[in-house]
Amino acid sequence: MTDSMTTDSMLAPGSASATDTADWGAALFDPPRLALIGASGKTGKLGALFMRNLLDGYRGELIPIHPSDETILDRRAYASVSAVPGHVDLAVIVAPETAVLSAIEDCAAAGVTAAVIVTGGFAETGPAGKARQDRIAAVARAGNVRLIGPNCFGVINVHTQLNASLGLGLPEAGGVSLFTQSGAYGMAAFSRSREGGVGFAKVVAPGNKIDLGETEIVSYLGEDPDTRVIALLLESIADGAAFVDAVARVTPRKPVVVLKTGRHGAAQRAAASHTDALAGDYRIAAAALRQAGARIVDDGLALLDVAAALDSQPPLRGRRVAIISNSGGTGVELADLLEEAALEVPRLSDDLQARIRAWIPAYGSPANPVDVTTDWPRFADMYGSSLRALLGSGEVDAVVPVLLQRSALMPEVTERVIAETRAARDAGSDCAVHACWVGPEGSEANRRRLLSAGIPCHPWAARTARTLAATVARAVHPRPAPQPPLPEPAGADADGWLAPDAAFACVAAAGIPCAPWRLVDAPEAPIAAVIEAAGEFGYPVVVKAVRPALVHKSEARAVRTGVASDDDVRDVLLDFERRLGPGPALVQKQIGGSLELVIGAKRDPQFGPVVVFGLGGVWVEALDDVAIRLAPFGEEEAHAMLAELRAAKLLDGARGRAPVDRDALARMLAAASRWIARAPWLAELDVNPIIVDGAGFRAVDARVRVGTP
Amino acid sequence: MTDSMTTDSMLAPGSASATDTADWGAALFDPPRLALIGASGKTGKLGALFMRNLLDGYRGELIPIHPSDETILDRRAYASVSAVPGHVDLAVIVAPETAVLSAIEDCAAAGVTAAVIVTGGFAETGPAGKARQDRIAAVARAGNVRLIGPNCFGVINVHTQLNASLGLGLPEAGGVSLFTQSGAYGMAAFSRSREGGVGFAKVVAPGNKIDLGETEIVSYLGEDPDTRVIALLLESIADGAAFVDAVARVTPRKPVVVLKTGRHGAAQRAAASHTDALAGDYRIAAAALRQAGARIVDDGLALLDVAAALDSQPPLRGRRVAIISNSGGTGVELADLLEEAALEVPRLSDDLQARIRAWIPAYGSPANPVDVTTDWPRFADMYGSSLRALLGSGEVDAVVPVLLQRSALMPEVTERVIAETRAARDAGSDCAVHACWVGPEGSEANRRRLLSAGIPCHPWAARTARTLAATVARAVHPRPAPQPPLPEPAGADADGWLAPDAAFACVAAAGIPCAPWRLVDAPEAPIAAVIEAAGEFGYPVVVKAVRPALVHKSEARAVRTGVASDDDVRDVLLDFERRLGPGPALVQKQIGGSLELVIGAKRDPQFGPVVVFGLGGVWVEALDDVAIRLAPFGEEEAHAMLAELRAAKLLDGARGRAPVDRDALARMLAAASRWIARAPWLAELDVNPIIVDGAGFRAVDARVRVGTP
Repeated sequence: MTDSMTTDSMLAPGSASATDTADWGAALFDPPRLALIGASGKTGKLGALFMRNLLDGYRGELIPIHPSDETILDRRAYASVSAVPGHVDLAVIVAPETAVLSAIEDCAAAGVTAAVIVTGGFAETGPAGKARQDRIAAVARAGNVRLIGPNCFGVINVHTQLNASLGLGLPEAGGVSLFTQSGAYGMAAFSRSREGGVGFAKVVAPGNKIDLGETEIVSYLGEDPDTRVIALLLESIADGAAFVDAVARVTPRKPVVVLKTGRHGAAQRAAASHTDALAGDYRIAAAALRQAGARIVDDGLALLDVAAALDSQPPLRGRRVAIISNSGGTGVELADLLEEAALEVPRLSDDLQARIRAWIPAYGSPANPVDVTTDWPRFADMYGSSLRALLGSGEVDAVVPVLLQRSALMPEVTERVIAETRAARDAGSDCAVHACWVGPEGSEANRRRLLSAGIPCHPWAARTARTLAATVARAVHPRPAPQPPLPEPAGADADGWLAPDAAFACVAAAGIPCAPWRLVDAPEAPIAAVIEAAGEFGYPVVVKAVRPALVHKSEARAVRTGVASDDDVRDVLLDFERRLGPGPALVQKQIGGSLELVIGAKRDPQFGPVVVFGLGGVWVEALDDVAIRLAPFGEEEAHAMLAELRAAKLLDGARGRAPVDRDALARMLAAASRWIARAPWLAELDVNPIIVDGAGFRAVDARVRVGTP
Repeated sequence: MTDSMTTDSMLAPGSASATDTADWGAALFDPPRLALIGASGKTGKLGALFMRNLLDGYRGELIPIHPSDETILDRRAYASVSAVPGHVDLAVIVAPETAVLSAIEDCAAAGVTAAVIVTGGFAETGPAGKARQDRIAAVARAGNVRLIGPNCFGVINVHTQLNASLGLGLPEAGGVSLFTQSGAYGMAAFSRSREGGVGFAKVVAPGNKIDLGETEIVSYLGEDPDTRVIALLLESIADGAAFVDAVARVTPRKPVVVLKTGRHGAAQRAAASHTDALAGDYRIAAAALRQAGARIVDDGLALLDVAAALDSQPPLRGRRVAIISNSGGTGVELADLLEEAALEVPRLSDDLQARIRAWIPAYGSPANPVDVTTDWPRFADMYGSSLRALLGSGEVDAVVPVLLQRSALMPEVTERVIAETRAARDAGSDCAVHACWVGPEGSEANRRRLLSAGIPCHPWAARTARTLAATVARAVHPRPAPQPPLPEPAGADADGWLAPDAAFACVAAAGIPCAPWRLVDAPEAPIAAVIEAAGEFGYPVVVKAVRPALVHKSEARAVRTGVASDDDVRDVLLDFERRLGPGPALVQKQIGGSLELVIGAKRDPQFGPVVVFGLGGVWVEALDDVAIRLAPFGEEEAHAMLAELRAAKLLDGARGRAPVDRDALARMLAAASRWIARAPWLAELDVNPIIVDGAGFRAVDARVRVGTP
């Protein structure tokens, strides 16, 4: 029973079986028969643009659909898809908005496998358009027609030369498949491919995403042999948890690079006004996608740069980079930027330096950056020999030849860089080679030669450093299997908040150690009862007033620390009663320590249970220095959370304080995440602070809210 | 007396008078008569390249110098500069390294005003070369010949077409003057100017900088009417304090943009190996230059982008940016990136939105980003009208038309953008206009048109956001006038450390409030004496063991907080004596508070007295979250320091804590900086922590080391 539950909950709701995906995938990207609804022969019409784009390269049977014309551009046309004899795999709809619903009805009647609705005028125009769009979605669902669109740029398969899109001509061929929610970005990516350096397998712009979206397309592209790298520009994510699952299944096999736009206020306002999708909480989305192994970038050019780099060179197995430059200044500039991007430019071993020194002038440097000086007649040999030595050294994970001005102009330098890279690759090296390219007029042919040989040419030093840093291989830790849900605790107040003792019970159940505490509810003799409890723990103690709706306790002065005597207890309880009215008190042993930790959890409507971890009480809020993950996660992931905090150093001890036991902390975080994932009734958890005491740690305050979203 | 001291100390040591600068400046960049030492007519020779470069545009008299040839390329040649009749303003030396010393001797004998030594083979090759270089410097100094070089790219004055450099041809003309310590970067900048968008006034590559360097050149360019923006690529700074003074004098009149390379380990290693300059502490240099009003960039392309943008558009008066786009997706992307670069993309007023709405389709957005949709036949009018409305609105400080794909291809869009920008500029608007350019093939003519009209075209969204953010107008606060030095306190130990009471006296003199303290040195009855002192302050107190060389007190457990009774005093002192031996104790009232501040100071060998301020005891070290300034500075600058801390929010109170009095804090910081500037004997000051108690704050620990560097 447990096993079958586990299996069920692993499958995201609505996720299609592999067979289904293969069916619509083949129909969408490699259709034997394609009907163009709204086809036209008249120049200037959208239907004519699509006719020409399809006639240009599409190898299957193109069937124009038109209400009255019998031939279009010499092709036999039909009045409807139902009128076409035999099965139609894909319908591409460019007909006017008013004709789209009937076209989809027609597709459903004819058993068309998939349709791309290019036509706009739906949800993006307002509520009436949204209603029309919903109608279309219902008809397609009932008729089992899978949809891309409406209001989209279309679909491209470069390898089969299928261009069912608004783009004029096909982009260059390569291994990058692009999913872009911005049609204009699709066109810009196309232009960019003409400049060299990025080649595409498939391009799909899903428009308003009424059916197939990022989750389905990533799953399909993950199995597609022509796709080596998946790049996504997302304005919205339809189902966060399902998308994360899909990405996690793909990243062990091929890189997934994601740009999410609409991260901030103005952008969210714009996204909401120009599509019907509202942006979610970006930080959770980014953390969840990273956890699933995706690489996150911040802008559209970086999306293409990083995807193209991963398509042509292996990811960096580590962070060590060697630079070979004919400009000392640019070598220095690049070294700075690489280190600022968290890469390393290590000093080379004496042996390797000695070998490189033999090839370069005495006033050059073999240390790294390797400075071959301006002795240009020997550039080819110096670049080539240094590159060979570095690729064979095992001392670095990538080599960056800086090709700047004269070295960029010399074809013999280019040829040596290509030859040495090939030879190393043939010999089994997985050390990456990326050129930093600052070429003058007249050097374009050399750049093209390098690109054709699969060596990225990043313009100038900053873009080189940024792209290289984004291609470092990442450890992705599989998430633990889900466990059966736990029963919901009783006794929440009207807003769902648990009483403090119940909250502490949750925290303890989650595996987070708590400072000893006791709830004292003795209306007749409250002072005596608290004094008795304090006597058990030993002074000093902490006394907290327990009253309904006292959520921000320290702001209401409802917590007293350092209560050191029976007299103190009396003073505190009288003060509580005067200001807050009578009620129970929670007494807790006071824990000393110089460092505070925070664990929080919430249920994100998009991504499900989320765990937040940070250091240092008020500092967490002031610095926003937190690590975020979807629950559950394992101990390795928890270690990664500790490492990514800016204040991580504090865990290692400071000013004589002992280091925190990171293993114990990671075990605790992972255990808490497993518990949180099993508590579907948990709306909010805030354990703050957890006080570090020597190598150990104990929670001293906790708030828990229950309630299904 | 005080006045004359002030004036003297304002002049950096070695800084030339304005007359001197005008003399060598004119000789260097606009020489009526120029001697080329090492001239040649033989193609492939450096002397021939320089002959051709000079013959190409130089309008003065070019005099070749050659040991034997009597004419070179039809010009009368002389055997030496001394043999030339009349005064020679500039000598450009491309002769072999072995001939350079005699050439300089010759220049000195002939009374040449300035010389550019292009020839390499000096300090960059090792100690022997350094010795040869020092000899040359001495001869030139004695003969009053001002020098650029050796080992340099040369000098260019684009406006007079003087090309005394290794560059082939002149770069495009403009208002940017470039000082580059990397010759290769000079060539790359030249290539970049050919692509459009950056134009140069003067270019100088100072090579090994044996005489004229960044300080002298910035001072000259500051007065040069052809120079509107100064861009510097620095690998080293010869005299930090003098350079900062020079920059501070220029920035009120024209922008200074600085790239400092050699910021990190590997880069510093390379810089040291390929020039003879060691990199200083980058953070201090960057802070000092920012304080002087310079704009700091991190890479060479940004140096050109930012300088060019400031040459063609006004700096942004504030942070508010409007976007006009034909791609909703790119508008969103750019809005995200602008907000991540600390700019704002504000929602436009209802009135302004209503006006823009009248020009754009119903499914567009006037909110900001303004989304004009893909309705391309109306692009020119929609871009033009929106731009006009935004430029006249006063609601934004910059407008960014995104010209992407089709809008970039349409000359009528370009023309309207240019016309509206001109009209607004003519009407007195200082709202900046920058295009975000993602143009396809065939759009280059439009890009060139925008650039010619002074509208920067930043490629793609990320570079647009980064460049725009670097052009925001910056408040530069003049530094207080220096005051006479204070006497050095007595009683330092062998390492220069002051005893705790003397240290606290310094801190109090610097205007930093201290918690009440007393040094108890009573060898006969130490316990009774401490108990007496504690009685005055009232328990709890802090007791610190005072022993020579006990610098890191908390690590030696030589500080006890929470000493709450006479018995506690006895225990603590006995423990100190057992572990640390007998000695005095410092007793201090214990201050409670939830926030700690840190003030530090040191004397930087390059920049002089430096003040460091941060929040939060151990957090300062863990996060490296500090604000750095040269002392002295005023209260406005101190407010800027508070604002730039990542943890600045904590000053505003948290969890019921009162906000810190920022004005009092700024006053205290400024006062401390004035005191520090008056203490030339101060090697190191560390006031940590200063405990915030309500709105006030008091130092509870301080270390002071004296000693001249």
